[in-house]
Order: sequence, then structure tokens, then C-alpha cells
Amino acid sequence: MSLPRIAVDAMGGDEGVRVMVSGAALARRRHEQFKFLLVGDEKRIKAALDNHPNMRGSSEILHCDDVVGSDERPTQALRRAKTTSMGLAIDAVKRGDAGAAVSSGNTGALMAMSKLSLRTLPGIDRPALAALLPTLGDHDMIMLDLGANTDCDARNLVQFAIMGAAYSRIVTGQALPRVRLLNIGTEDIKGTDVLQDAAAKLRSATGLTMQFEGFVEADKISRGDVDVVVTDGFSGNIALKAVEGAARFVGDLLKRSFMSSLRSKIGFLISRPATDLLRHHLDPNNHNGAVFLGLNGVVVKSHGSANAVGVANAVAVAARLLEDNLTQRISTDLAELGEERLRETYPSGAAK
Amino acid sequence: MSLPRIAVDAMGGDEGVRVMVSGAALARRRHEQFKFLLVGDEKRIKAALDNHPNMRGSSEILHCDDVVGSDERPTQALRRAKTTSMGLAIDAVKRGDAGAAVSSGNTGALMAMSKLSLRTLPGIDRPALAALLPTLGDHDMIMLDLGANTDCDARNLVQFAIMGAAYSRIVTGQALPRVRLLNIGTEDIKGTDVLQDAAAKLRSATGLTMQFEGFVEADKISRGDVDVVVTDGFSGNIALKAVEGAARFVGDLLKRSFMSSLRSKIGFLISRPATDLLRHHLDPNNHNGAVFLGLNGVVVKSHGSANAVGVANAVAVAARLLEDNLTQRISTDLAELGEERLRETYPSGAAK
Repeated sequence: MSLPRIAVDAMGGDEGVRVMVSGAALARRRHEQFKFLLVGDEKRIKAALDNHPNMRGSSEILHCDDVVGSDERPTQALRRAKTTSMGLAIDAVKRGDAGAAVSSGNTGALMAMSKLSLRTLPGIDRPALAALLPTLGDHDMIMLDLGANTDCDARNLVQFAIMGAAYSRIVTGQALPRVRLLNIGTEDIKGTDVLQDAAAKLRSATGLTMQFEGFVEADKISRGDVDVVVTDGFSGNIALKAVEGAARFVGDLLKRSFMSSLRSKIGFLISRPATDLLRHHLDPNNHNGAVFLGLNGVVVKSHGSANAVGVANAVAVAARLLEDNLTQRISTDLAELGEERLRETYPSGAAK
Repeated sequence: MSLPRIAVDAMGGDEGVRVMVSGAALARRRHEQFKFLLVGDEKRIKAALDNHPNMRGSSEILHCDDVVGSDERPTQALRRAKTTSMGLAIDAVKRGDAGAAVSSGNTGALMAMSKLSLRTLPGIDRPALAALLPTLGDHDMIMLDLGANTDCDARNLVQFAIMGAAYSRIVTGQALPRVRLLNIGTEDIKGTDVLQDAAAKLRSATGLTMQFEGFVEADKISRGDVDVVVTDGFSGNIALKAVEGAARFVGDLLKRSFMSSLRSKIGFLISRPATDLLRHHLDPNNHNGAVFLGLNGVVVKSHGSANAVGVANAVAVAARLLEDNLTQRISTDLAELGEERLRETYPSGAAK
């Protein structure tokens, strides 16, 4: 089976064209079947392609002049959906001209454009941004939402749980991923009414393709005993960034400690393979590629500061979701849950 | 000047009496002027005191049979404020029988009891839980609220900023601590209406004893360029625990990496002083002692799982706040802001 090509917004991200094209080329060196639609300034894309002969014959350029600014309001960017590299990459997915879109641009704009163009799956009110995070266990865990929806109601959180579980089944191969809601305590009485409500719905629902195991606190998400952590976009973004910042902080402290004496410096040089392993494990580029779940199509958000390795990983995430047909899986899970049960789980009148 | 004695809820925490009494004794070995009122089961406290001759003559026992459960609902615990060790420790502060209270018990109950018994300072609607966190800079930073208030409005956040700045002045000695609001982006358009509103109020206010510098993302709180991070209790709790969990996660990974080969093991042994330094820097016991700010009295929350070193640090925090008269400082700052300006900053009718 040939994989549909991947539309790459070549203009987004802090580094722009060069990193995006290098990332795509790197992904293609690892997976020769990858094909690309590179969207953006043709002249600059062509210049970047000069360094990557392996992209010849496997990539096409879709020219446009316009770019979404990194600080631009999503509502403003939406008006230029038909002219910007981000908008055209998403549009290619809609038209079936590409299977997935990858962008390192403005997250809010990417979300707004994707939602407007691709629409949400039946049974999903709002898409959510999901990322893979490293754990002490055998595989990564998935956290969502990471910033697409600042405010969420219980119905949103239940849908996020279903989508996250579908994604986790692809990543972990487990039939019933272990799902928890992020909260400030694990006791039943902890947290907001929305969390209480979502937990009650998930506990009482039948036919879910997951094990719902209640609440999890933010200090326990990386232990490897939870596969999907569900939260609203504000808390999820805070948690994700706090984890990233703390990991960097500890790394910096470690560096300082190692440099604090000659003895430690020598020890550092000897144990270099160990610290290199740690660095590799924690490098955000090696976990790059957050996914907008719940759309009629695959859209992957690459970190704005990702390097070529990071972009290549984001491309690989998109390819994997195409291969394993994530969109279809979510639809099936929702259908499995059944119209009847769905209505029990969240009567449409009860939604905010 | 003699320091008022400190009331210790000897029954709270995972380990109970022994750790609380050992912690108080350890604090007293460092600061001989400390005096204690130990509240709880007299027989068990006496047994624990047998190991600490330095506590003789410097501690009195206030006996009670009742203890607040760690999973107990605050509303339920409140009814037993007059009979529990937690309630009686706070009551001692109210009666002037102790200068501060320290407890490792149920945070929600401690908050509810403290608020009911001690009442908030004039100009403060709700107390907030604040903790010191390590940074790469010269001194710790302060984050608040960490879980006392799940929902906050802009007016609450402005008050938290004022209280956090007062605390930071004690810790850092800076006249105008740098204050930021925790958000999911630093651009003006990011975040909830509440955050937008709080930022606008802090930007336009005059007479504040702080430099308000806008928003900060959760990955940048430990870099040492912000002294006070202000947030609602839900996000603050998530951020704090995410940081704690990530630090532990990296530590575990590091251990694994070092054990992955003989060469790394040797390197580890040689650089042991460096990793010990790191461990010491990151041990939560060395940063133990969160403070309820905004009350007529000092109440310090020690972590439920703190060891004797942790409890001793929580006691030292209480002593320092008594010495430096935090409560008075917050009142002065509020008065400094002035009734007029206070009303401009948040007209009382505008509060939720």
C-alpha cells in the first residue's frame, strides 16, 4: 500500500524553510516511501531543496506568498486560510491532495484553520492537541489537550479520553489503554465540578475501548502506569511546559554540578555515554509532533523551535497515523460506544 | 527579641508524631531560641520526646484525641476545629498562645480552618498557598496559589501578586520583586479572560511594591529571572507537581543511565559529589514549608510525606516569617497601595 503524501507548511517555525525541508528530507532518508507537498515560497523552497537530492521526484511545491505570523490572532489568520502556507497545507488534506499536514507555525491558527477546513468527526465537538511524552515504562504516554481548548466541559473531556485511547492503541498496541484525568488530587472529592462530572461519565460508560482509572496528579504522569492523561488545554499546556522546563532545569543543574570540581569533571567525561543517553531521552526533538485529534484528517503540529530531527519526527508521526488509520479508529470507537450509549454518557442537551 | 513559640500539629502527615517531633527537635538544634506547643496525643508525643532531650523545657504539650483525616472533606473537618490537633494548633495562633502553626495534615482542611479561625487580612478576599522553588538564579522564587483556591478571579490574582511580592522581599531582599502571571503564552492575547483582566489591572496599578512583567510560561519559571509566579490554585498545583514529578523522573533516568554500563558506573562513583549536590538541591525536603498568605497569623503547610529534615525546614520558614513580620508587611503594602488606588485597581462591585 502506498502512503498518501504529506503536506508540509514550509514557512512556519522559528527557523523557517531550511529546517522544514531538511526535516522532510531526513524523514525520507529513513522511510523511502514518503512523498511531500511543500507549501510556501517556491524560490526559497527550491534553494533549500538543492541540498537534498533525495527529495527530487518525491516532492512537489505549492507556491504561495503569504505566511501566518507566530503572534497572529487565530481569528485574523483564519481570514487568510486561502492564501497562507498553513491554510493551503490543510486545504490539500481536505481536497485529498495530501493525507496529512505538518506545520511548525502558530498553534492557535493551525487549530482554527484545521477545524474550519477539515471539520470535526461525527460525535466530536472539539479537536484536541495530543503529544507523546517519555515515561519510565516501556512506552510513551499520551497527554491531551495541550492548548487547543482553554476551557473544557465534561463532555469535551470524555471525547478527549476516547480519542486519546484510540491514539494510544496505535502507539502501545494495548487493547484497553489505561486512562486518567489530570487533577490536583486522586481522592474522589478533589478538583472542579467539570472533572467530577467527566469522571462520573467515564466510570459509568460501557463499551469504551479503555480502562478508566480515575484521577492522576501531575507528579505521577511519567511513571509508566498510565497511558493517556486527559485534561483541559490550559492545564495540559501548563503541565507539559512545566515538565519540559523542569527537565531542562535539572539538566542545567547537573551540568553545573559536574563542572563544580576537577573530580566531577573527570567523572563526567568517563560517564559521558550515560549522560548522552539521558540527553537523547529528554531532547524534545525526539518527542516532537503533537497531533490534532478529532478531525476529518491528520494534522501534526511540530514545535516552533524544532530542528531538522524534530521536524523529521513530526513527519514520521503523521505517516504513522496515516498508516494506522487513526481517524478511522476514532470513528469506530465512537460508533462502538453506540449512539444509545453516547447519549447516556453525555445527553446532548447537557452540553455547554 | 524573643520569638513567639510555634504550634506544631503533631498528628498530621504520613508518618505522624515521630517525624513531626523529630523535625521540631532538629529545627531547635539549629536555632536554640525556638519554642514549641506540640498539639496531639499526649502519650505518643511524650514517647517521641524521649529521644530529644533538647526539647525539654522548650516545648509544651496540648493534648487532644481527635485527628483530621488526610482524605476528609474540609467542610467535614471544619466541624471538628475545636477538637482536632490541626484545629487546636490554629486556635493557639488565634489566641496569641503561639505565633505560628505548622501542620503536615490535609491541605484543604488546614486552609478552611485557618481561614475561619484567623480570618483574612483587610483587603484580602482569599488566602493563598505559596511555596519557595529552586531556580538557576541566586535565590528561590515564590509560586502561589498552589491549591488553596481552585477557581480564581482577577481580583484574587492581583491580591496574590501583592502577597507574593511581600514574601519575596523577605526572601530575596529586593525592594521590587519581579512578578509574572502564569499563562500558556507570553503574548498579550494568550490565556483566559481572568488572566487578561488581572494583567491589565497590575499593569495600570501604581504604588505596587513590585515590578509586574506580564506573563510567564511554565517552562521558564526556574530560570531565575522571575521572583514571584502568580496563578490560580488549580494550575499552580498542576505546575508544582509537574515540576516535582519531572525532577524525580530525570533523576530516575539518570540513575538508570549511570547503571547501564561498567564505564558509567565508574564515572558515577567518581562524580558522586556532583550528583549528591544535585540530589540535595532537588530534594523536596530542602524546600519544604508552604505558607498560607493573607491571614491574620502565620500558618505553614509541611508536605505530608516530609521527613524530619523537611519538617525542620517548615518550622524554620514559620520562624522566619514571624521574625520578618510577613503579616505586617502585607498589610503595609496593601495600605501603601492606598484605598483610592485599591478601588481603582479592583472596584469592589466588580468582584465575583
